[in-house]
Amino acid sequence: MVVPAPDLPARIRIHEVGARDGLQNEKSTVPTAVKAEFVRRLADAGLTTIEATSFVHPKWVPQLADAEELFPLVSGLPVALPVLVPNARGLDRALALGARRVAVFASATESFAKANLNRTVDESLAVFEPVVRRAKDEGAHVRGYVSMCFGDPWEGSVPLHQVVRVCAALRDMGCDELSLGDTIGVATPGHVLELLSSLNEQAVPTNVIGVHFHDTYGQALANTLAALQHGVTVVDASAGGLGGCPFAKSATGNLATEDLVWMLQGLGIDTGVDLGRLVATSVWMADQLGRPSPSRTVRALGRTPQPHKEQ
Amino acid sequence: MVVPAPDLPARIRIHEVGARDGLQNEKSTVPTAVKAEFVRRLADAGLTTIEATSFVHPKWVPQLADAEELFPLVSGLPVALPVLVPNARGLDRALALGARRVAVFASATESFAKANLNRTVDESLAVFEPVVRRAKDEGAHVRGYVSMCFGDPWEGSVPLHQVVRVCAALRDMGCDELSLGDTIGVATPGHVLELLSSLNEQAVPTNVIGVHFHDTYGQALANTLAALQHGVTVVDASAGGLGGCPFAKSATGNLATEDLVWMLQGLGIDTGVDLGRLVATSVWMADQLGRPSPSRTVRALGRTPQPHKEQ
Repeated sequence: MVVPAPDLPARIRIHEVGARDGLQNEKSTVPTAVKAEFVRRLADAGLTTIEATSFVHPKWVPQLADAEELFPLVSGLPVALPVLVPNARGLDRALALGARRVAVFASATESFAKANLNRTVDESLAVFEPVVRRAKDEGAHVRGYVSMCFGDPWEGSVPLHQVVRVCAALRDMGCDELSLGDTIGVATPGHVLELLSSLNEQAVPTNVIGVHFHDTYGQALANTLAALQHGVTVVDASAGGLGGCPFAKSATGNLATEDLVWMLQGLGIDTGVDLGRLVATSVWMADQLGRPSPSRTVRALGRTPQPHKEQ
Repeated sequence: MVVPAPDLPARIRIHEVGARDGLQNEKSTVPTAVKAEFVRRLADAGLTTIEATSFVHPKWVPQLADAEELFPLVSGLPVALPVLVPNARGLDRALALGARRVAVFASATESFAKANLNRTVDESLAVFEPVVRRAKDEGAHVRGYVSMCFGDPWEGSVPLHQVVRVCAALRDMGCDELSLGDTIGVATPGHVLELLSSLNEQAVPTNVIGVHFHDTYGQALANTLAALQHGVTVVDASAGGLGGCPFAKSATGNLATEDLVWMLQGLGIDTGVDLGRLVATSVWMADQLGRPSPSRTVRALGRTPQPHKEQ
């Protein structure tokens, strides 16, 4: 039964991260052709924003070392295909292949900036500034990820003002969109609302904010509901719940796109996604990876050919 | 960080169902002494309402055939210990052992009433009526479970009026509390709010309503958040996410008590539960059962001796 809750957005854009965030942490190498097929199937399931890969140095994320080979295989798809660019070199590589949407990856905490980027927060922002400016000059859409927005494995709870400062800096340098990452999955709904309100107070409007929750403690969908109630309309999710972050040990479990779509369908919120095709895609990808999907919805719907669906 | 969301209850009572709902579906027999130790550890972790067992005929739920042996082992604990009673015979057995809280188990749908109770909905209500009356005459607190409140594996989406009718009947016969079960886990937050509003309109007040969500599609905690926002203060959960329902094939994954407590702690909502002790209890119980807990929080906190906690 489709029963909208009051005061929720009519439409949500899912920013699908499975092909990048979902695969960057895989132990075995996923063939480029499989990745391309994954992206094609995600597009065929109705996802309109599919983060394809990262132009990071292969030394750091060997799983995505084939970005140059992969991107041309999918760039003709009629969907937005953002790619991660860690620095000017990465941006050059992405732009040379015709990427129209890029993303930089910042940290709200010093500890994670050091661990993930080997720089201080300010040093990393200084690296991103010319990258974002050049991308904007080239007409690209720029997303700014902010990781560890709620808790950090080394520092514990992250003060709101730290997150707001990094978000405001990314906006000031020209980022079109921000993605607030709960990299270790510790956030709860009140914390989410508090951060969104703090951002609004510091001139970061809700319509440039996406949310990126991890299900490490099972909180991702409840946090998403709180964000939707605040008016957020961009939600990051990973098909089948693939992935985590290779540099944060306790980061497990991206929000599964299927679990998100189940909720949004029940709420009558339009996503354009065909849940059956998406589940089939995640079942197929789970076969490629040789292990079952952690998504509850994939497990429920993937195990029977013609599942009961309430909706 | 503890950050309350606006307009949520200050205190929640968790109705812990792990020892009954969680174990009734186990394939191997759990020794009575292990069950008793489980209940003791749950009480020691701060849970105040622990459903202990069911006085159902052993033929139907052989896992709980030891109710007579188990109950005296735990009845001295300083907590409420509701027990399920399917009929007058079950009530007699429970009262004879000194049970002060009992529960009956109704269905909102004809298909599940037939499958689970082998009666029509009205026939089952007719069986419960004298059971509830006698329990009330004996001064016992009576809970009425209503299963399949949102969707049913045979009938699909369940009309609100069916649920309201069964709830009102249980209230009329004297049930002190109702538990709205999403037995197959298909509900989404708008549906939850709609049912709660419909019940309120038909003179079933929120303060007699508990919610019982399953995580089959990953929706349990988001649905719980919606229910809390409506003012619900009784939430059913199962330590470690144990259990499902033996008579509903697609019913898997009770909401894990630990995932619930993580959210409530983050929201500053008092439950009296010590999360560390509860996780330790679920890790211990998982060892007894020989398989890992499906709770995300148990997996996150149970794997390291001194986990990072945001809260």
